[in-house]
Amino acid sequence: MAEKRNIRIGLLGFGVVGQGVWKNIENNRQALERRLGAHLDITQIVVKNASKQREVEVPAERYSTDPARVVENPEVDIVCELMGGTGEALDLTRRALSQGKIVVTANKALICEHGEELFELARKSGGHYFYEASVAGGIPIIKTIREALVANRFKLIFGILNGTSNYILTRMEREGLTFDATLGDARALGYVEADEALDLDGIDAAHKAVILAYLAHGKWVKLDEIICEGIRDITADDIEIARQLGYKIKLLAVIARDFEANKLSVRLHPALISKKEVIAGVDEVYNGVSVTGDVVGTTVLIGRGAGQDATSSSVISDIADAVFMLQGAPAPVISEEDEEVYQQLADGLELTTPEELEGRYYLRIHVKDQEGVLARISNILAEHHISFATVNQKELEDGSALIMVTTHKAGESAVNAAKLSLAAEAIVLGKPVSFRVFDPSKLI
Amino acid sequence: MAEKRNIRIGLLGFGVVGQGVWKNIENNRQALERRLGAHLDITQIVVKNASKQREVEVPAERYSTDPARVVENPEVDIVCELMGGTGEALDLTRRALSQGKIVVTANKALICEHGEELFELARKSGGHYFYEASVAGGIPIIKTIREALVANRFKLIFGILNGTSNYILTRMEREGLTFDATLGDARALGYVEADEALDLDGIDAAHKAVILAYLAHGKWVKLDEIICEGIRDITADDIEIARQLGYKIKLLAVIARDFEANKLSVRLHPALISKKEVIAGVDEVYNGVSVTGDVVGTTVLIGRGAGQDATSSSVISDIADAVFMLQGAPAPVISEEDEEVYQQLADGLELTTPEELEGRYYLRIHVKDQEGVLARISNILAEHHISFATVNQKELEDGSALIMVTTHKAGESAVNAAKLSLAAEAIVLGKPVSFRVFDPSKLI
Repeated sequence: MAEKRNIRIGLLGFGVVGQGVWKNIENNRQALERRLGAHLDITQIVVKNASKQREVEVPAERYSTDPARVVENPEVDIVCELMGGTGEALDLTRRALSQGKIVVTANKALICEHGEELFELARKSGGHYFYEASVAGGIPIIKTIREALVANRFKLIFGILNGTSNYILTRMEREGLTFDATLGDARALGYVEADEALDLDGIDAAHKAVILAYLAHGKWVKLDEIICEGIRDITADDIEIARQLGYKIKLLAVIARDFEANKLSVRLHPALISKKEVIAGVDEVYNGVSVTGDVVGTTVLIGRGAGQDATSSSVISDIADAVFMLQGAPAPVISEEDEEVYQQLADGLELTTPEELEGRYYLRIHVKDQEGVLARISNILAEHHISFATVNQKELEDGSALIMVTTHKAGESAVNAAKLSLAAEAIVLGKPVSFRVFDPSKLI
Repeated sequence: MAEKRNIRIGLLGFGVVGQGVWKNIENNRQALERRLGAHLDITQIVVKNASKQREVEVPAERYSTDPARVVENPEVDIVCELMGGTGEALDLTRRALSQGKIVVTANKALICEHGEELFELARKSGGHYFYEASVAGGIPIIKTIREALVANRFKLIFGILNGTSNYILTRMEREGLTFDATLGDARALGYVEADEALDLDGIDAAHKAVILAYLAHGKWVKLDEIICEGIRDITADDIEIARQLGYKIKLLAVIARDFEANKLSVRLHPALISKKEVIAGVDEVYNGVSVTGDVVGTTVLIGRGAGQDATSSSVISDIADAVFMLQGAPAPVISEEDEEVYQQLADGLELTTPEELEGRYYLRIHVKDQEGVLARISNILAEHHISFATVNQKELEDGSALIMVTTHKAGESAVNAAKLSLAAEAIVLGKPVSFRVFDPSKLI
């Protein structure tokens, strides 16, 4: 047997995920090293505070507070950026890639905001940038799209990419709880990011949607170009009415490409989705992604979208691919010709604007309970060429009422205009709320 | 840009899957070649009859009836064995691997019966044997276990690996049809293999279970060492009672490893599975596999398990990996050190015998409708230390009755012995039928 190569790994950051990587490499070291034909040696761990008590025991000399010991160290082969954020992480990733190093990351925000620059830098410097752990935690969605489904062009990718919001929606649905009550529990369980907007306003999942859109279509989309709506407006009533109609409400990322029109729609928003769809059955903190390719048809992947172990499973999978690169493999599938591949893939591809969307909608309108109110609302919608598919009315204790309708097919612009018209009516209290009905069969 | 290498591919067999590979490479040739950094050239197609009319148009000079033009041709880099069967396919695979060629296959029967020899031959000769398409069609389960989940040891892999039997069970469930009526439809739709035992007696799915057991645990299991039971005994009554109790009946492959006892259970049989399990929701011709790793937790993959396009998507994915090997990549993850890795993985690993199984069972007993019959049956089961969890009795038109019970935890041996005792009773008509209740939470 040939001498095994020693692969030297440097970690930037040693929080939950970093310690998970250490722990899980140690736990399965023997099997892993035999499979890879290499020794894995985490030689350097850059932290802010080397003396802090941690979950795993690491020899003190591995710690350093100087990131140069990882990013500019010729004796480090693979850099794992597990610090998060878009400040220092950006600087260190740039420095490591500039050195031609292979960088493995779980940092979705950084890729979403600076991926275009960082992939370009990796190409030019002969480094590589791996990011399986950045989307959907332990689910191997990046490798699946990049390698396993390489024969395909992707008409539709959609799914649940944020576990915290899915946990909240699942609890609301199962127990009829309010958003606020469930959020309290999610906070107590430590499920909610310090910056709550990431989970509750859809930003975290939108970051991931942007990464998948790039991977599948070669186009970098900016967060401010896309619909990004979170779950704060969803009430127990919405979920109950959806349930009666055969739907669940899920926070969905949607990446839909129309190859004929050469248009790409990337968006992140809550939607009513038929209970018959597999993705509708993805509950609690689980993530799920449905991928429809022109050859393979629809494939669905479901798994843990976050957490120390699931995320470190993906980081270790990227480390394994990096080890193969260091042993002579070309960069996986998307090779040094990336740029050309991706220019080709994205050639002339235009983003669908929100106004171009159409479909069925759910609307919740809070009204004074007066005679003729439903007729009035019906008229206003009709003026915008929107017709009811279903109507439910619920009396509230204060004498006002909720009118919850689903519409036949309507345009997004018409729905927005109708909501403005409704809000201007004296009989309407507050702003009407709408959610889209998502029917994947219309897109594949 | 560097000159692209020309990769020469030879096909053995040009039936449904072979033509799918040709068609889908042609359809997505540009994107595919750019991603791979190589030209893909199917230079040789070995068929029995070169002049037969086919779905795709191929230049006549590519056809040959002489397999040596593929397997012994130094100008062929990758051999795709898409002829099926275990006769000539075995001979040709041996010859191609002996030449150090990379062989891509969809042939589960061949791997199941001769995989040990063929992988060994590939190792010794410097060839490689890729087999993504052999298990679960378009679902990338092989790559997922081999690469994406490389950090994991696999406590439980289970799922639905045969689309035809799943189609039949789904129709029976949704429409209350008999097995025979549904089978007729499945035959008319061309879903059933010429050798019907492959689909109906579980053999096709058992082949796949054997392959997954080898991939995950390094142990070759023989078909005659494992439980392999098909769907012929399932009736509409069984499905209805299961439904009332919150279960579906699915034909499940189960590969469960107990790392502490170092035991492996590989089996294929119908089972009652809770509707809450994602796999229970995999209907029609779809396949689904649930993989529980010690790091990643549970990941589920669902997709098309058969069909021209889905299967060719997996063949093309293997061709892509083969192209990377030809460009210098080491064999994917399981490297030339396979033998040692796998000896290690399987070291001392023993197969669980059927008699060691225990769990809950469903029993259907056809009885004469006499006073005290339920008490008699209850007594017989009690003699075997088996107690009822639920009981349903249904009167039949001829005055006899079906008693359908689920049991509390019982041993497989006790259930088998009880069935023999029951069959010997004068009040029992025919042989009692039993199905296992499968609860994955007991195994992870």
